[in-house]
Amino acid sequence: MRAIVFDGSTLHYEADRPDPKPGSGDVLVRVLRAGVCETDLQIIKGYHGFHGVLGHEFVGIALGGALEGRRVVGEINCSCWQCDTCTRLGNPQHCPHRTVIGIVGRDGAFADVVAVPERNLHAVPDAVDTDIAVFTEPVAAAFRIPEQIAVARDDRVVVLGDGRLGNLCAQVLAGLSDHVFVIGKHAQKLAVLEEMGIRTQLLSEMDPVGDRSADIVVDCTGSASGLPTALSLVRSRGTVVLKTTIAGEHSQSLAPIVVDEVTIVGSRCGPFDRALDALEHGLVDVSPLFSDRFPLADGVRALERAQEPGVLKVLIEP
Amino acid sequence: MRAIVFDGSTLHYEADRPDPKPGSGDVLVRVLRAGVCETDLQIIKGYHGFHGVLGHEFVGIALGGALEGRRVVGEINCSCWQCDTCTRLGNPQHCPHRTVIGIVGRDGAFADVVAVPERNLHAVPDAVDTDIAVFTEPVAAAFRIPEQIAVARDDRVVVLGDGRLGNLCAQVLAGLSDHVFVIGKHAQKLAVLEEMGIRTQLLSEMDPVGDRSADIVVDCTGSASGLPTALSLVRSRGTVVLKTTIAGEHSQSLAPIVVDEVTIVGSRCGPFDRALDALEHGLVDVSPLFSDRFPLADGVRALERAQEPGVLKVLIEP
Repeated sequence: MRAIVFDGSTLHYEADRPDPKPGSGDVLVRVLRAGVCETDLQIIKGYHGFHGVLGHEFVGIALGGALEGRRVVGEINCSCWQCDTCTRLGNPQHCPHRTVIGIVGRDGAFADVVAVPERNLHAVPDAVDTDIAVFTEPVAAAFRIPEQIAVARDDRVVVLGDGRLGNLCAQVLAGLSDHVFVIGKHAQKLAVLEEMGIRTQLLSEMDPVGDRSADIVVDCTGSASGLPTALSLVRSRGTVVLKTTIAGEHSQSLAPIVVDEVTIVGSRCGPFDRALDALEHGLVDVSPLFSDRFPLADGVRALERAQEPGVLKVLIEP
Repeated sequence: MRAIVFDGSTLHYEADRPDPKPGSGDVLVRVLRAGVCETDLQIIKGYHGFHGVLGHEFVGIALGGALEGRRVVGEINCSCWQCDTCTRLGNPQHCPHRTVIGIVGRDGAFADVVAVPERNLHAVPDAVDTDIAVFTEPVAAAFRIPEQIAVARDDRVVVLGDGRLGNLCAQVLAGLSDHVFVIGKHAQKLAVLEEMGIRTQLLSEMDPVGDRSADIVVDCTGSASGLPTALSLVRSRGTVVLKTTIAGEHSQSLAPIVVDEVTIVGSRCGPFDRALDALEHGLVDVSPLFSDRFPLADGVRALERAQEPGVLKVLIEP
């Protein structure tokens, strides 16, 4: 099969890589569409030390199992379902023995075929176009936030970052609060949010002290500056949701967290069923996020394109 | 009056300082006993940029108001009771206009007399000795934790730090969980906890990787190494309570917070009524924490003594 492979130092296209061998419980999925994510861009900078086929946002046709022949999306955490974390704690997404599709110890979906645990698959409703369904994973990540914290109609919510994930988090939170505000660096990306009726501000025009009035701040910056900025905006006893995973160590002052009794909530993968439902019923509009698409053979260019200013979602099509 | 004063660079004793002038709503309190806290030691290293009379843990006799003539302790945050934080958010301990006794913009209790807002005062029950009541403020800080997070009987709780606050947090949490474990650097301080029936371990004997099984980790280390150690011990989706306020910036890796969806809760001042009740009914035993006492004129030596290895609580007696 064909695939986009990261070998630890460079990213390249392989025209003749062996098909993945499905492990116990896996089914093969023929990939129809895949999306480039910020995590993919972090990986090619060395985050996670991943080697193999990249890609974890995908829609495909199941080639076996109960959903054979149907369009499917797949949750990315592949858990052992036997350890204490999976069973007693009921927490399989955090299984210490897990592999993660295209991120940790398991080939991903920038390929003709990807192996996925059958229990991770969800059928895509007929009403959801393949180009739309490829957003299931990041939309689910946005829906993780209300699973973790209560968001009230009159909460003042600030989303930091106007990229793909910031946009989706803002849309999901705007369904819960009347006071969602996005701060970003890119006028063009903020304009997309304004079109959706979400208020925005350029970071460069923000009061550097901040008025400390936000009940909730969600950091989707993908940058080490996200947490200090969030702490300058959140009120005392408020909540900062961290979505940013960045490699390496960064200098931070922790005293404000204690003095202001801020709660910081790390937030990662979310509910696919909720995301598919939101995409089916138009609760989240992903169509303004398309920036470009590339055939699989040009997948390396797709990842370059995803790093360009102003670009939101780039799709890869085998 | 006499007082121990920090002038921004050195700590000294003043034999003839003017008595404090009570502001609107303040009463004067004649100090009977004061305690040296880790925050005092941070202040004389430059934290908060405080100038004035140090000291925020105290017992005294109210010289006015409804409690005149009675033994009292006083909450340390002096709020405006008029701003949005005090009123709409019901959050006066975080009033942005507040002064804090002996910490921010208001003289403290290492003195013959201290001015305290009358509404901050609590009468000390007769059954509670003055030497015991001086622990009200740090015991209240320990009781802040169960106000912020649920602690279940079978939760695995690790307290990092065997100092004054670590000891009190461990005692309070041991009333809620059967699995409280203290990790510290000082065999002698850990022995105090073992005497109380709380299990302990020397940090130097700890598995450096950690088994990641703690549901809750409370950082009372007063050190920048506290958070990374806490993150090495807490399970995924577990909670780290930060009690440590340290000056300056420190290098931290934030990715584990997101990947493991850890919640970090900053925790500061707590309920005085709850603390006085616990001291009255012996739910917390502070007597093993006494290390030494000094007259007010030797207050500078008291702060030096509090920094010596193996020392827990040092009292100052005007």
